Amino acid sequence: MTTLSDAIEALPLVDHHVHSILPSSISETEFIDAITEADHAFSRETAFDTQLGFALRRHCAPILGLPAFATGEEYLAKRAELGYEETTRRLLRASGISDYIIDGGYLPEQLLPVDEFMGLADATPHTIVRLETVAEAAMDGATSYADFLERLAASLAEKAPTAIGYKSVAAYRCGLDLAPERPTADELATAASDWFDLVQSSGSIRLVDKVIVRHLIWWALADEKSVLQIHAGFGGTNLMMETASPVLMQKLVAATQHTGGRIVFLHCYPYAREAGFLAHLYPHVYMDVGEALNYVGANAVGLVRESLDLAPFNKVLFSSDAWGLPELVYLGAKLWRDATSVVLGEYVERDGWPESEALRVATLTASGNAAVLYGRSF
Amino acid sequence: MTTLSDAIEALPLVDHHVHSILPSSISETEFIDAITEADHAFSRETAFDTQLGFALRRHCAPILGLPAFATGEEYLAKRAELGYEETTRRLLRASGISDYIIDGGYLPEQLLPVDEFMGLADATPHTIVRLETVAEAAMDGATSYADFLERLAASLAEKAPTAIGYKSVAAYRCGLDLAPERPTADELATAASDWFDLVQSSGSIRLVDKVIVRHLIWWALADEKSVLQIHAGFGGTNLMMETASPVLMQKLVAATQHTGGRIVFLHCYPYAREAGFLAHLYPHVYMDVGEALNYVGANAVGLVRESLDLAPFNKVLFSSDAWGLPELVYLGAKLWRDATSVVLGEYVERDGWPESEALRVATLTASGNAAVLYGRSF
Amino acid sequence: MTTLSDAIEALPLVDHHVHSILPSSISETEFIDAITEADHAFSRETAFDTQLGFALRRHCAPILGLPAFATGEEYLAKRAELGYEETTRRLLRASGISDYIIDGGYLPEQLLPVDEFMGLADATPHTIVRLETVAEAAMDGATSYADFLERLAASLAEKAPTAIGYKSVAAYRCGLDLAPERPTADELATAASDWFDLVQSSGSIRLVDKVIVRHLIWWALADEKSVLQIHAGFGGTNLMMETASPVLMQKLVAATQHTGGRIVFLHCYPYAREAGFLAHLYPHVYMDVGEALNYVGANAVGLVRESLDLAPFNKVLFSSDAWGLPELVYLGAKLWRDATSVVLGEYVERDGWPESEALRVATLTASGNAAVLYGRSF
Repeated sequence: MTTLSDAIEALPLVDHHVHSILPSSISETEFIDAITEADHAFSRETAFDTQLGFALRRHCAPILGLPAFATGEEYLAKRAELGYEETTRRLLRASGISDYIIDGGYLPEQLLPVDEFMGLADATPHTIVRLETVAEAAMDGATSYADFLERLAASLAEKAPTAIGYKSVAAYRCGLDLAPERPTADELATAASDWFDLVQSSGSIRLVDKVIVRHLIWWALADEKSVLQIHAGFGGTNLMMETASPVLMQKLVAATQHTGGRIVFLHCYPYAREAGFLAHLYPHVYMDVGEALNYVGANAVGLVRESLDLAPFNKVLFSSDAWGLPELVYLGAKLWRDATSVVLGEYVERDGWPESEALRVATLTASGNAAVLYGRSF
Repeated sequence: MTTLSDAIEALPLVDHHVHSILPSSISETEFIDAITEADHAFSRETAFDTQLGFALRRHCAPILGLPAFATGEEYLAKRAELGYEETTRRLLRASGISDYIIDGGYLPEQLLPVDEFMGLADATPHTIVRLETVAEAAMDGATSYADFLERLAASLAEKAPTAIGYKSVAAYRCGLDLAPERPTADELATAASDWFDLVQSSGSIRLVDKVIVRHLIWWALADEKSVLQIHAGFGGTNLMMETASPVLMQKLVAATQHTGGRIVFLHCYPYAREAGFLAHLYPHVYMDVGEALNYVGANAVGLVRESLDLAPFNKVLFSSDAWGLPELVYLGAKLWRDATSVVLGEYVERDGWPESEALRVATLTASGNAAVLYGRSF
Repeated sequence: MTTLSDAIEALPLVDHHVHSILPSSISETEFIDAITEADHAFSRETAFDTQLGFALRRHCAPILGLPAFATGEEYLAKRAELGYEETTRRLLRASGISDYIIDGGYLPEQLLPVDEFMGLADATPHTIVRLETVAEAAMDGATSYADFLERLAASLAEKAPTAIGYKSVAAYRCGLDLAPERPTADELATAASDWFDLVQSSGSIRLVDKVIVRHLIWWALADEKSVLQIHAGFGGTNLMMETASPVLMQKLVAATQHTGGRIVFLHCYPYAREAGFLAHLYPHVYMDVGEALNYVGANAVGLVRESLDLAPFNKVLFSSDAWGLPELVYLGAKLWRDATSVVLGEYVERDGWPESEALRVATLTASGNAAVLYGRSF
């Protein structure tokens, strides 16, 4: 399968969901925090004794000039020796990613400005707007719930021209078991008023209201007729796995299918088959298994295979969902390439798929489907 | 593994859940509609860029005299050139299916009469009665809820002598989270009255009432002591995946285990492991992974493997769940044969199973278990 | 992969969740009952036509001096010929298990005393206390609900010094969808009073009260700062699969993470990925896929692979969950060794893992993680 895997290795990638990286050299503790989704501090031993840790030692070490499977300690020492810029540049450029669609809505104050990130990557950025972040910024400083709604509308209108799409983290905030209907103006006003009062009394701004989240989802799909990324499955401790399955949104998905908007379910672990079910049934649903590939490392083959069950091949995208570390960008790309080579190679060897057809399917996920979905030529 | 796979390739099959086919040559649009479960029209490109599309190009094209992986366009042209009868006859007869257990309850007015279908297939038909369809026909024209209940009882009694078993599509209508108890006469009367009134006021007859569905299920199992097929998992847009898992019926399954009736969960994607759990625990539960094999194509190996987790080997059946196209009949058979050869071949190679034992297990699923379940020698 | 698989074959094992065995020669019916989780009697044919039956014929037959894949009939005859002690001794000692952590809370009156069990095994026992059993014994003979609570506290205090950890079968009794908070003294008193009254009126003692179960869980974790084993997923007919997923306990898991107690989710079929999610996110969560390996036999590879998705490698343990038969002890060990060799061998061959690292990961699951979790050197 040399030809096919070589060709997949060489495919330019569009990373359709990613974040920027930390802005300077970091401590071991910060590094380790960035390779888990947990809140508690992993020991170095625990952090590297994971699929992600093993994948990092295997794939990233050689990019820094170490032998594969150098120890975690050796890796961190080499990283420090090369310095921030060299390490970052090597890893990002080795990923073969030409375009980054960047969600700047999660802790952006901790991250490198996008232009500097792209300079190190030698790549082109595109903007995803995280809806809950916009709503919280609109609430911060609002003088009344009506003021919040005005500020929200103005902020969304201001961001829309530069956004290639939007994102909702409903799974982190209120779960995906959302009612299908678009909230009425009255329902929205009531919800905004309740949230405003809660912010005043609690001093904490964190959007968890289902009505406001549904309003944001409907706005992106029906008013903007844009792409809406929706996090599903595996994530951090704020996320309740029980309410993070994409099928909980089936009625809302059905209700929005004629809006002109499109939905992409992100990551979806362990719900890739469920996401594929929706991608098969509804014309406006897409999916990826990004992020999860990094975390399951040597088991990435199984996830890539599941992503090719029911979803039409023109509905599956690539993403790394990296946050903070260039390693996570490179690994996202490398693990996707390797796992895709194994899965499609198996279809060629065992099921007689022509190599050209297998490569065409890989190319769709690498970049072609993103081009159609986001309406850009990358 | 030549011996084993050749032997599995040659096994006669009983397709224990299938529908008839469209009655004449069809347009490209109709063909494409029949190879998806979606409501919206797939483009030709999308329709063929799926696991089912690839499987069709790989396996069906040679049956029509084309090379494997002829394009979708070439396939449709060849299909038209050969004509309806020749295409149909070739595909059905290449399937190696000797007996078809036919659910005639889904859009039968669009399909070929069973005797003509069987003439083209050179095979023997058997009848499955879809319970919701019988109930809706009994409601259509009923003059009161009491009249409906009388008509229903009469219609069921009339159909029983020719039925080899029954089917419920509760997953499409009201979900599988059903109360376990048999409805009392009073509960049934109230539900029938409510449904009658709803039909009168809405003008639409579609059974979604859980009490009536439970009545039909109990009738088939406890009164008829027959086989009841229950659709689980993947299906069309009327089906909410959240309420389509067979484990939601666990209490009803437990409550009916001493009735003399048997339950077969059909298809079960992605819930094959859950169905196997029930098949292990309850003496009257069987399962298949039909239909899903067609839709996951080159990934069928994984589903066949999952179907052999917890279910005793004498509880797993074969079906195609084809509707409309002879291609779906042939693919159902071919993908089952190929995937079963891979899975059982792996058990032989890696786990030392004797080939004779592997072939015996394959034969059980191919036809032996259906013979015991339905009480017929096929 | 000879080196790696030989090394894994030779690893000493700590079986961190197991029960004793039946005390003397048994009938065919008793044997067959012990190789299913069902309540109904399997026929010999059905019992052996399962993954467990095939695994038993493959792996256990040679231990008794029969060829692999001797028939079930031959196996049972040989078992009788060798006699109870010889059969038991051979199978237990072939398992390579040095330490058994024994849950004596399920039908212990039917089983061999632990010292005799360990004599046949030539191994060291450790004690797990099943909390629901303690509570039921405290209720049996209590003169009031207050008396029950006193007896319960005294009994727990008495057992604590010899317990290496505790177990809850909440999944069998009330489901894992438990509120996170520790019950207050008032809530506990009310629940105890209600249960006491129910026992008086019904004559049956079976703990299914969620408040009391939560009290027991919090006691083990927060007061004892001990290890709490929690059954999840596949089990017998008292268990409703719908409420047996470990993610239903996510809030309770989160609430207990700073107590000093640790949680191990046992078996977890088909929820191993979900258990791994919790093991990744929470510092005090561990998991195994024991018992399920026996029941899926030749498919054990897939479960072992899933157990190495998200869970850090120092969070995954080995258990057999055997009850009644020495065959289930041996098979648990053998299937784990073989499946682990396949999975880790694949990581070595395909992903370049050093053999030494693969063996280190295997050793962690075999015994190292149990040593850390239970704070003993085995």
